[in-house]
Amino acid sequence: MKKPFGSPGKASGLILRIGQCLFSTASIGVMTSASGFFTVTAFCYLIASMGLQVLWSFGLACLDIHALRFNKELHNHVIMSLFVVGDWVVATLSLAAACSSAGVMVLFTKDTEMCKTYTKFSCNLFPISIAFAFVSWFLVAISSYVMFWLVASI
Amino acid sequence: MKKPFGSPGKASGLILRIGQCLFSTASIGVMTSASGFFTVTAFCYLIASMGLQVLWSFGLACLDIHALRFNKELHNHVIMSLFVVGDWVVATLSLAAACSSAGVMVLFTKDTEMCKTYTKFSCNLFPISIAFAFVSWFLVAISSYVMFWLVASI
Repeated sequence: MKKPFGSPGKASGLILRIGQCLFSTASIGVMTSASGFFTVTAFCYLIASMGLQVLWSFGLACLDIHALRFNKELHNHVIMSLFVVGDWVVATLSLAAACSSAGVMVLFTKDTEMCKTYTKFSCNLFPISIAFAFVSWFLVAISSYVMFWLVASI
Repeated sequence: MKKPFGSPGKASGLILRIGQCLFSTASIGVMTSASGFFTVTAFCYLIASMGLQVLWSFGLACLDIHALRFNKELHNHVIMSLFVVGDWVVATLSLAAACSSAGVMVLFTKDTEMCKTYTKFSCNLFPISIAFAFVSWFLVAISSYVMFWLVASI
């Protein structure tokens, strides 16, 4: 079977995993550098969720490097099923974290005057971190669809 | 091919669609009956997203009834692909709406004293509406996976 774009053990798959790692790390970096983030549960959850995504994507990136280097075949049904479940859990948690943070951010900037009254909040940094989290989710969503497609068509 | 649980044109598929309609409608009903919801963008977005889900699920429920009544075959590749795209869009929007509302709700109850200071908010009704939205998302997620599985394995 021809391997589709982004499948494990392929260069495009590795690029997707590296992208997920980079954007998740960037999201955590920007959020932790913003003052006042720890007072909002949604922002703390974003950091936890992005942390999980970094670990997951880094692990799979290492596996991809190993497969590319030694020309190994990763299209085993058990491994793929494991990847699918993991990818979907991580993707759902990432989307949930990004959306809950975005909801709070809209409340801070549009619905209330919290960003103006509470000057301790770094309201210019929160949206950047959330945007990185959405990009990271988008990349993991692509991987999830490719994995699910592969498992369903094996 | 044997039709899996929840596939279109099957009684289980129809039950899933009716469940989605009911929980989305309940979510809208509870949210609109809560005072002060219109001042929060996330809650308004929840209503819009649940409205879209009601329309989508109701349409597909009618199609399921038609298929069951006249014993029609809905496993056409074009129709199924359309269902998959629609289901995934609706599921993603529903999860996004439920999570953004949940993020705001946690901010209201845990991070700040907004529910105590702003007595105009019906803080007891918002979580019920959000819970219904999550149940509705869960049901549409099951339909989406079944659809995607069917399209991938056709």
